[in-house]
Amino acid sequence: MNKINIKYLAKELNLSISTVSRALSDSYEISAETKAKVFALARQLNYQPNPNASGLRGQKTKTIAIVIPEIVNDFFSLVISGIEKITQEKGYYMLVYITHEDHSMEVSFINSLVKGRVDGILLSRSSEQDDYSHLLELNDKGIPLVFFDRVCETMDNVKVTTDNYESSVTATQHLLAAGCRKIAYLQAPRNISIGQLRMNGYLDALKDSPGKQPPLVLECTNDHDENSMRIKKMLATEKPDGIFASIEKLAVICYSVCEQLKLRIPEDVKIISFSNLQTASLLNPSLTTITQPAFDIGVTAARELFKRIEKKSTGGTAEHVVLKSLLVKRKSTSTR
Amino acid sequence: MNKINIKYLAKELNLSISTVSRALSDSYEISAETKAKVFALARQLNYQPNPNASGLRGQKTKTIAIVIPEIVNDFFSLVISGIEKITQEKGYYMLVYITHEDHSMEVSFINSLVKGRVDGILLSRSSEQDDYSHLLELNDKGIPLVFFDRVCETMDNVKVTTDNYESSVTATQHLLAAGCRKIAYLQAPRNISIGQLRMNGYLDALKDSPGKQPPLVLECTNDHDENSMRIKKMLATEKPDGIFASIEKLAVICYSVCEQLKLRIPEDVKIISFSNLQTASLLNPSLTTITQPAFDIGVTAARELFKRIEKKSTGGTAEHVVLKSLLVKRKSTSTR
Repeated sequence: MNKINIKYLAKELNLSISTVSRALSDSYEISAETKAKVFALARQLNYQPNPNASGLRGQKTKTIAIVIPEIVNDFFSLVISGIEKITQEKGYYMLVYITHEDHSMEVSFINSLVKGRVDGILLSRSSEQDDYSHLLELNDKGIPLVFFDRVCETMDNVKVTTDNYESSVTATQHLLAAGCRKIAYLQAPRNISIGQLRMNGYLDALKDSPGKQPPLVLECTNDHDENSMRIKKMLATEKPDGIFASIEKLAVICYSVCEQLKLRIPEDVKIISFSNLQTASLLNPSLTTITQPAFDIGVTAARELFKRIEKKSTGGTAEHVVLKSLLVKRKSTSTR
Repeated sequence: MNKINIKYLAKELNLSISTVSRALSDSYEISAETKAKVFALARQLNYQPNPNASGLRGQKTKTIAIVIPEIVNDFFSLVISGIEKITQEKGYYMLVYITHEDHSMEVSFINSLVKGRVDGILLSRSSEQDDYSHLLELNDKGIPLVFFDRVCETMDNVKVTTDNYESSVTATQHLLAAGCRKIAYLQAPRNISIGQLRMNGYLDALKDSPGKQPPLVLECTNDHDENSMRIKKMLATEKPDGIFASIEKLAVICYSVCEQLKLRIPEDVKIISFSNLQTASLLNPSLTTITQPAFDIGVTAARELFKRIEKKSTGGTAEHVVLKSLLVKRKSTSTR
């Protein structure tokens, strides 16, 4: 039986009960130092808040949901790491749901949360479908919702993304500076907003290039073998000397296809990709990446969500937090 | 305050706590006679079940918890994918908790679940600490627990792992067959059971080798830079011609260190590793791996858990499901 209650913590710390209570609920009235002391002892003694003491916690579920399109992906696992850092600090639980890029799964999961299973939701959309009534219902019900990475542009909720457009301009300019005369863009499947922004960056950078190089866009799918076939055909017929992969998966396919076609990277074709691959520097050759601040995206999105959970505000501030990605030059775009 | 709890009933009836718990939840495993006795005493003493003890309340939370040591790791993200396949089929929610290899975090999280937040738990242990009383309490409370990958050998709960010992023998024999005369073993940090099994496979394979090659074990830590330094020193002084990394992280460090020391893989040193790296075939050179059936481990562990959730059994069958890993030969151990 767990006998550790707020009274006990207060006595041990020589603080008043109300101070400990407010510290545990992360009140702004309590100093960071005092909170740290209270949390440390609470953790040490494995203090469990009494779920029936509604006066203390506003009947919270102490759970947030994270909705992502996939999980075997260094970007999303890094985002989860960042979110988890904050949920642990807050003493919250983390429900993880994978939509597999399927809009109907997103709708069905969100609908199941409307009844109050969680205190807030962090969402990276399955697709940019016009239908987002399921998300509007969360706002109606007062359940805080924060978007990250794949956002819903038309909703007012806070969005945390990277600078997709600017990074794409940078990536394309990097290939141009490396001497590429025919740069292909591998477009991610489905019309998600980040896809559009990334493609616009590529198109605008080409438009501004000295030779006004015409674009060469290859539309890809969610099917690995189909993408492999399309990229192979494109490389064989169009013979681009530069490839900009809008997502990591497509860059990885390029490596295999180039080996099959006996094309040398970077001599015959240079490759750059949006990627958080932990092993990018060990690939053959090492892959030049636009690296997104995935962990920080998770931390920032979670902090934004908790601001709203604690203030009981559902957002509506139309805030958009943009974290910068980084160009990491490696051998796949080298000129020597 | 109602002091009549399951423990009290068990003592009075001279039965185990789990028998009383299962009798009260009307489990098919308990005889009608025993159930009658338990119900009679419960009525007589006006026993009130704790509404938060999931084993007792029949009203399911429709949630399971997954406890893993880390998430930015293709093995664990593949396991989660497998688990998620089953939770989606069952219409269940998935709480994910990361222990960061810290035993006290595992204890604190498990303790927070004892009150009935979830219907069952899938656990890969943070470390092989002798202290597992927090896990025994789950059994007492009738909350199903299934181990995967990093198991607790001394507990009866179902375990799902790969054939760690046999795979290690295979890996070591593969290096021997490739002509390695001095094979170093990179030992994973902490004394987890899979670490011991893997090391025994290596040691036994060397013992049985024609030249009875003496072992060369390098103990690693959880710190990347420290490991990098130790591996560098070992490669420079001991000059092994083969390296067997017991975990992927250590193999990745070897690649960087070999580049720094201008050692060629596989000409100067051959490398094999337990690994689920999606990009193993694209590394420079491609990495020979012992690939674990991570997705299937997730699927199998989840199925075993749901068997117990649905039957209201807490396990205790001492079952151990072993799924075979696969040796995938690539250039890092090639003899040409």
